[in-house]
Amino acid sequence: MDNRPIGVFDSGIGGLTVLKEIMEQLPDEDIIYFGDTARIPYGTRSKETVIKYSFQCIKFLLSKNIKAIVVACNTASAIALDEAVKAFDIPIIGVIEPGAKAALSSTKNKKIGVIGTSGTINSEAYQTRIRNMDKSMEVIGVSCPLFVQIVEEGWEDTDIAKMTAEKYLLDLKEHNVDTLVLGCTHYPILRYTLSKVMGDNVTLVNPAFETAKAVKEMLREKNLLNNKKIEEKPTYSFYVSDDPEKFRRIGGNFLRKEIRNIQKVDIENL
Amino acid sequence: MDNRPIGVFDSGIGGLTVLKEIMEQLPDEDIIYFGDTARIPYGTRSKETVIKYSFQCIKFLLSKNIKAIVVACNTASAIALDEAVKAFDIPIIGVIEPGAKAALSSTKNKKIGVIGTSGTINSEAYQTRIRNMDKSMEVIGVSCPLFVQIVEEGWEDTDIAKMTAEKYLLDLKEHNVDTLVLGCTHYPILRYTLSKVMGDNVTLVNPAFETAKAVKEMLREKNLLNNKKIEEKPTYSFYVSDDPEKFRRIGGNFLRKEIRNIQKVDIENL
Repeated sequence: MDNRPIGVFDSGIGGLTVLKEIMEQLPDEDIIYFGDTARIPYGTRSKETVIKYSFQCIKFLLSKNIKAIVVACNTASAIALDEAVKAFDIPIIGVIEPGAKAALSSTKNKKIGVIGTSGTINSEAYQTRIRNMDKSMEVIGVSCPLFVQIVEEGWEDTDIAKMTAEKYLLDLKEHNVDTLVLGCTHYPILRYTLSKVMGDNVTLVNPAFETAKAVKEMLREKNLLNNKKIEEKPTYSFYVSDDPEKFRRIGGNFLRKEIRNIQKVDIENL
Repeated sequence: MDNRPIGVFDSGIGGLTVLKEIMEQLPDEDIIYFGDTARIPYGTRSKETVIKYSFQCIKFLLSKNIKAIVVACNTASAIALDEAVKAFDIPIIGVIEPGAKAALSSTKNKKIGVIGTSGTINSEAYQTRIRNMDKSMEVIGVSCPLFVQIVEEGWEDTDIAKMTAEKYLLDLKEHNVDTLVLGCTHYPILRYTLSKVMGDNVTLVNPAFETAKAVKEMLREKNLLNNKKIEEKPTYSFYVSDDPEKFRRIGGNFLRKEIRNIQKVDIENL
């Protein structure tokens, strides 16, 4: 057993959907979250920059004496995960592998849709991972740039969200996909609207949920679960690299509870 | 007379609306445009970083032997213009001053609305500038984060654009503003939709148009206009710090013509 916290990082606020799933599936674990809000988005950065930033996030979390790291950012998972696993002597899990695996288990007609930011879709991270596991899969990626802002405005259940989803998802519906991967950490907030637009026959895959499952499995296998007494409450600490106020305000909508205990970190000069 | 080109820079693609106005009002001028697409958005950066980036953009343009500089970025105009005017020995014009002046001339009921990105609105750049010129003005700022993406998708005339505008502008309509400043370089593309939502009694102020007017006036005063022969066509060159493809694709919608001659620049290591 290991009672040290789990470290989670993202380029910003979206990783809170991953945090939420870990909190639900591993309610005894303490967690430290770092959101690199000053340098968001990672999606438009060069490969070298994404690796540099990700390593800085990991080093910051390591300074907090954690037992495992979750890369809750799609871009960092796609670009920096392999390098990080090689460079650091600690278990590290990203969001893409668990999401891709779940999509493969879910599809029956071998037609999978993936939605995400332009950066994630153009990187082909999910598409490549899924096809590498099974070449017979047809994977269609669609970037949905408006969704992040719609979620950050708290408009996920409005007509604007529904009409935007109808526009973005039209191609995927016409292609008759039976599985849709929510390849951006913001999108689980939109799942009811997305599900309504796609219809009951399409399974939504939430990589945040799948990643939390993978973390739980890994901790159990490596005997790293927290053996807290049942009456002890877990501790959650939040760090960001820019103004905590926006994080507090929008993050509350992600976690469905008030976020306290947010500290600002100068990530470039640690 | 001075036949060297005018230099224009922006954090990305939005400054093309300023370029378009300069092209129309000064059809004899050659122009060099730099879009710092690798480091967009400036709005979330620290003051020091915005000044550093803006100075790098200016130095790049100076290396092209220009006669004047237009800061076509709201954030850079708000934060770096005064420093730049002190540091460089060349005429430099930003977008905020011309926009603020035009709003003052336009309003009759002294109620002015300003819309922009969260960065521009929270910086209070337009609000402060207008109130400094006339303390009796009531200025209401509203940030409209979805508008940039709506324009970049080419959705400016859709129902989604109209419904989003109705949501964002509701407060301004209730406050009975008679003048609305389009405080983000993307927003002129949305002007028909914005005008429909605000109604005929509200004047839209386009800082891109006002800035081009100010540039023309300044060049005339300083005797720096281009005295090209009438049959000579002007030359437009484009530089960006990231993948030119997105710039080419979306930029075409801004200029209403195809953009050729785009070169990538490594702005951090010039």
